[in-house]
Amino acid sequence: MPLPAEFHEIAKRVNNWGRWGAADEIGTLNLITEAVVREAAATIRTGRRVPLAVPLRQDGVQTGMIPGRINPLHTMVAVNFEMFGPDTVATSDDAVTMGLQAGTHWDGLAHVSHSGRIYNGRPADSITSHERAAFSGIEKAGPLVSRGVLLDVARARGTERLPEGHAVTPEDLDAAEELAGTTVRPGDIALVRTGQIQRYLAGEKEAYAFPSPGLSLRTPEWFHARDVAAVANDTLTFEVFPPEIEDLWMPVHALDLVEMGMLQGQNWNLEELSGVCAEEGRYAFLLSAPPEPFVGGTGAPVAPVAIL
Amino acid sequence: MPLPAEFHEIAKRVNNWGRWGAADEIGTLNLITEAVVREAAATIRTGRRVPLAVPLRQDGVQTGMIPGRINPLHTMVAVNFEMFGPDTVATSDDAVTMGLQAGTHWDGLAHVSHSGRIYNGRPADSITSHERAAFSGIEKAGPLVSRGVLLDVARARGTERLPEGHAVTPEDLDAAEELAGTTVRPGDIALVRTGQIQRYLAGEKEAYAFPSPGLSLRTPEWFHARDVAAVANDTLTFEVFPPEIEDLWMPVHALDLVEMGMLQGQNWNLEELSGVCAEEGRYAFLLSAPPEPFVGGTGAPVAPVAIL
Amino acid sequence: MPLPAEFHEIAKRVNNWGRWGAADEIGTLNLITEAVVREAAATIRTGRRVPLAVPLRQDGVQTGMIPGRINPLHTMVAVNFEMFGPDTVATSDDAVTMGLQAGTHWDGLAHVSHSGRIYNGRPADSITSHERAAFSGIEKAGPLVSRGVLLDVARARGTERLPEGHAVTPEDLDAAEELAGTTVRPGDIALVRTGQIQRYLAGEKEAYAFPSPGLSLRTPEWFHARDVAAVANDTLTFEVFPPEIEDLWMPVHALDLVEMGMLQGQNWNLEELSGVCAEEGRYAFLLSAPPEPFVGGTGAPVAPVAIL
Amino acid sequence: MPLPAEFHEIAKRVNNWGRWGAADEIGTLNLITEAVVREAAATIRTGRRVPLAVPLRQDGVQTGMIPGRINPLHTMVAVNFEMFGPDTVATSDDAVTMGLQAGTHWDGLAHVSHSGRIYNGRPADSITSHERAAFSGIEKAGPLVSRGVLLDVARARGTERLPEGHAVTPEDLDAAEELAGTTVRPGDIALVRTGQIQRYLAGEKEAYAFPSPGLSLRTPEWFHARDVAAVANDTLTFEVFPPEIEDLWMPVHALDLVEMGMLQGQNWNLEELSGVCAEEGRYAFLLSAPPEPFVGGTGAPVAPVAIL
Repeated sequence: MPLPAEFHEIAKRVNNWGRWGAADEIGTLNLITEAVVREAAATIRTGRRVPLAVPLRQDGVQTGMIPGRINPLHTMVAVNFEMFGPDTVATSDDAVTMGLQAGTHWDGLAHVSHSGRIYNGRPADSITSHERAAFSGIEKAGPLVSRGVLLDVARARGTERLPEGHAVTPEDLDAAEELAGTTVRPGDIALVRTGQIQRYLAGEKEAYAFPSPGLSLRTPEWFHARDVAAVANDTLTFEVFPPEIEDLWMPVHALDLVEMGMLQGQNWNLEELSGVCAEEGRYAFLLSAPPEPFVGGTGAPVAPVAIL
Repeated sequence: MPLPAEFHEIAKRVNNWGRWGAADEIGTLNLITEAVVREAAATIRTGRRVPLAVPLRQDGVQTGMIPGRINPLHTMVAVNFEMFGPDTVATSDDAVTMGLQAGTHWDGLAHVSHSGRIYNGRPADSITSHERAAFSGIEKAGPLVSRGVLLDVARARGTERLPEGHAVTPEDLDAAEELAGTTVRPGDIALVRTGQIQRYLAGEKEAYAFPSPGLSLRTPEWFHARDVAAVANDTLTFEVFPPEIEDLWMPVHALDLVEMGMLQGQNWNLEELSGVCAEEGRYAFLLSAPPEPFVGGTGAPVAPVAIL
Repeated sequence: MPLPAEFHEIAKRVNNWGRWGAADEIGTLNLITEAVVREAAATIRTGRRVPLAVPLRQDGVQTGMIPGRINPLHTMVAVNFEMFGPDTVATSDDAVTMGLQAGTHWDGLAHVSHSGRIYNGRPADSITSHERAAFSGIEKAGPLVSRGVLLDVARARGTERLPEGHAVTPEDLDAAEELAGTTVRPGDIALVRTGQIQRYLAGEKEAYAFPSPGLSLRTPEWFHARDVAAVANDTLTFEVFPPEIEDLWMPVHALDLVEMGMLQGQNWNLEELSGVCAEEGRYAFLLSAPPEPFVGGTGAPVAPVAIL
Repeated sequence: MPLPAEFHEIAKRVNNWGRWGAADEIGTLNLITEAVVREAAATIRTGRRVPLAVPLRQDGVQTGMIPGRINPLHTMVAVNFEMFGPDTVATSDDAVTMGLQAGTHWDGLAHVSHSGRIYNGRPADSITSHERAAFSGIEKAGPLVSRGVLLDVARARGTERLPEGHAVTPEDLDAAEELAGTTVRPGDIALVRTGQIQRYLAGEKEAYAFPSPGLSLRTPEWFHARDVAAVANDTLTFEVFPPEIEDLWMPVHALDLVEMGMLQGQNWNLEELSGVCAEEGRYAFLLSAPPEPFVGGTGAPVAPVAIL
C-alpha cells in the first residue's frame, strides 16, 4: 500500500531538505551550536552521572522479531594467554558479532527510506552492501553532545509505565515539558520516557518488544516546531507499535529520519534518570551520546551519559 | 622468563589492592567524585567538541600482529527492504564482527593478568570463555566522564611525532604538564600524545603498529603519585614497543591494569585535540568516554569526546 | 555431583585410550580402512544421492537453550558490486557468523571432557581460547567417508517418531539392525533415526530441542562391541534428554567422545533417507561426511551425503 | 567499460539459458544423472580417500585483496564449562565468522552477474541483502557427488607449477586429458591443477593471490563442449589474473556462472591428489563435494574428498 495523503501532508510540514544545503548529511544535528553546548554545560550542578545504555549481552533486548538484528555474541579469542612464554604477563581478548541496532543505539539517517529517497533527497540506492551508507552514514554524526531534556511522559501522566498501545501525543509532550520546568529549545536532545523498558528489565522480553507504547504520528511536528536535534526513548520500536493507521508502518521513522533528518534513539534505559530528575527537581542536563563511528553505518551502538 | 625483581619493586609501590575494599572491581575510577565532574564541567568555555575515535571500518588499525583481534567486518542484513510490502517505508540494517579492542578502546582491568592474578588479587581463572570476566568486566566502568588533561609530549618536546622507539618518561610527562598549564589531579584522565597515530592516518599501518613510541616502565609511578583515574594515548601498544627491558613484555599493562587497577586507552586520535588545545592555550576539558557496556568484556570500543 | 560408579564401570568397558597409540587423536576413525571404503563403494547400485543436512539459515535448529550456540547470521558484503567500473561483471559476496555446532554437525573429540581429561587421556586444559583444541581438533578427522548403515529405530518400532522421552536401547538397535538386513561392522558409521527432526521440519523448534528422545546410556557398549567409526542421529541433544539418571548429564557424550574416542553427529535429517532405504529395501550405503576442517575445532558443520 | 564483442560471441556459444526449463536454478548440475554417479562409484578400486580442502584458520588464503572476504575468525564460547555443576561432564563450544568464499569453496551461480542478469536470465536484483540469492542460492546445488577427473595441467606440461601469468588454454586441457587417460564426459567434475596453491602452502600468501595462473577466456567452450557439471582449481582467482584482455575483468566467471550455469570451485588443494593419481596411473575418481547448504548463499565452503 502506498503511503497515504495524511503522511505526505505531515511530511511537507516537517521537511528539512535543502535547509542546510544540498550537501548536508547530518540534518538537525546542525542545530547543536557551541552556544547550545555551553548551555548544556551550565546545567551541570551536582556532577552526578547517569548511564542510559542497557548492558550488551547475548540475553539482550532482541527477540528475533526483527530479522538479522542479533543480540551480541561475545566470545573469547584468548584467556590468560602467555603469548611471550611461561610466567610472563598474560592477556585476555574478546570479539563480538552483533546488529548495530541491537542494543541502545542511534538510528542513522540512512536507516529508512521511502519513495526511493533518504534524507535531503538523496537516492536510496546510494546505500549498498559493499559501501553501506555513502551518504549520512552514522559516522557523520560526530561527537554528539548537547543539552538533554527528559520528557517524562509516564510520570507526567501519573503512571509508572504507559499502557501497551499508548501513542504518545503532542499533548503528552506538552505535559512532560511542563513537568520538566524548561522549554525544549533548538539543538536540544529530547529523551521521551514511556517506562516500557521496565518490561525488559523484568525479563519480559517479548512483552517489551510488542505491543509497545511509542511516539505518535503527530509528534514529528512537535519536535520540528522546537527544532530539537534528536529524540530518543525507552522502547524497541520508537513509535507506537502496532501503528495508529492500519498498514501505515513506521511513519514516524520516515518523518523523523527521511523528512526532518533527525536521529532517533531506541532502547535507552531512562529509569534511573527519571528518579534522579524527580529527586533533583530538574530535567535538563548535559547529554553525551556519540555513536560508535561505523563508517557507512545505518545506525550504531551508543553508551549515553546524562551529567547533572 | 619470570618477571624480574625490578618489576616487582615498582608493583609494590603502585599497588592499589584493597584500597577501595576487597569487593572493588573498578580501581582508580573510584577517584572520579562528583566534585571532579563539577570541576570538569567548569573547564567548558567555548563549547567546542572534539571527537577522539578513529572511524570503525575494515581498513582499521589492526594489521594481524595481534592474533584474533580483527578490524570491523561491517555487513548489511537489509538494504532498502520493504518489509511491509511494495511502496512502504523501507529499512536498511547492518551487523558487525570485530575485536572489542580493535579500534579506539579501553582496556578493561581483566585484560591482563600476571602470576595468576588480576586487579585486587582476584584469580585470573575467574575469566572464562563462557562467562568472560566475572570480575572487573568493562561494563563495571560505567559512565566514564571526568576532567581530561592533554599531556602533549610531542609538542612539549618540540616535535610533530616522537621517534619510533621513544619511551615516554616521567620527565616527558612533567614537561607536558608544564605546557598544559594545569596540575594533573586525582580523578583526572590523562591523554598522552605521542603523535604516532599520524602514521595510521597517513596509511602506514605497519609502521603505526611497530615499532612504536609509548609509555615507559617508569610512568605508572608518575600516574600513581597524581592518582589519575585513567590514561589513554595515541598508539596501538600503549607502552613503548619493543619493551625497554629485554624479554619483559607488557610490564606497563601489568602495572596499570593489575597492580593499580587503572584503565588504559589505546588508538585514540589526539591530533585535532592537540591543535585545539594549542590554539586555545588550555589543555583541560570535560572528557566523556564511557565504554560500550559489554558484560564481562576485557575491553570495549569507546567514542570519546573532549568538550572545551 | 561427581560422576556415579555406574558411569565409571561402563567407561572402563568402552575405553579405547592407548589402543591406537599414545599419540592418537582420531580414535575410532582409525577403524575406517581402505577395505571398509571399498565395501562402502560396493553398496552403490542405483546412484541415488540423499542429502542429510538441514539448510543453514537464521531460522535454524537452535533455540537459545545452549548459550552462545547461535544459528547462522548470514549477511551480504557485496550485492551486484561492479568493482571494476560501470557495465562490467558484478559480484555478490556473503559472510556468516555461526556456532560450529549450530546445524548439522559432528562433535569433535575435544567437545567434552570429564575428570580433567579428553580422549586418550590428554589434559582438558590443552583446549584454550587462543589455540582451541590442540589435540583431536575436528580438522584431524580428515576425509570422513565410510560405509553408512541406517538404524531406523522409529520404523523398526512401527512408529513415525519415537516418543518424547524415549531412550534408545541396545534392544532398539538390535531391532533396527535386523530391519536393516546387514550386520553393523567395524568402521561403519551408524545413523540412528528417531524421527525427532520432524518436529523441527514442522516448525516446532522448542519441541524439537527438549524433551528429546535419544541414545541411552547403555548404547555406547553396543557401538563399542561392533567397533563402529562414528554415530549420528536426528536430534539436537544426541542422547535422551532429560537424562535417564537424575543429575547425570551428558553421560553418552562422555562415553562416546572421551572414553571411546568416537565422533557423534547431531541434527542430521534422516527422513528422506528413511524413505529411500525402505523403498529400496537396503540400509547400507556409501556415506560421505567430511567435517569442515576448522583447525582446533571442537566440532564442525558437515553436509553429509548418502550414496546408494 | 562495457563487455566487448568478443565476450558476447563466446557467451552466445556457451549459453545454457532455458536448456533445463525456465524454472531451472542449478544449470549444469542437471547433467549429473544417477548413471554418472554409478560410473563414479565404479572408479573406486583401492579405497584411498584424498581430502582437497585447505584447513580453515585465521591464517587462511585471504590477504585482504577482496574486500570483506575475511579468513575465519574462530573463537571459543565455552572451554571445559561444567554447565551442570562441579565435577560433571564439561563442554567446549566454538563459533566462527568468515566469508563464505574465504577458503576452499564453490562459487554459486548467483555469485556474479552481468548486464543485469544472473543464470537463466533471472534479474540480478533478485539478490538482496535481506533474502540473499532468491534464485540459484548455493543450497540448491544439493548433494554434489559425481565422477571427478583431475586435469593435471602442470604435470602434463612437465612442470611443478605453472608460471605466474599463465592462462590455461584448451590445448593445455587437451594435454591434461590425454595424461588422464580418460575422456571428460557429461556430468563429470573437472579439477584443473596449476600447482599455484604451493605458494600458499609455502606461506607466500600474497604471491598465491596475485598474479595467478588460471583458466583462459577460451576454456568455457572446452568445458561446454564436454558438458561438465562443474570445474574447480587450485587458485584464488580461478581464472588467470590479471586478465588476458585489458579491462575485461572476470570474463570466465561471467561465462561459467552466468551463461553456462556452471559452478566454479576455488582454493582446492590438488597437490596430494596429483601424487596419488600419478602413482596409481589413473585420474578419475568418485568426488564428493556438497557445499554447506547456506540458504541463498552466493557461495559456500566445501570439504571435498576424492575416493579412488
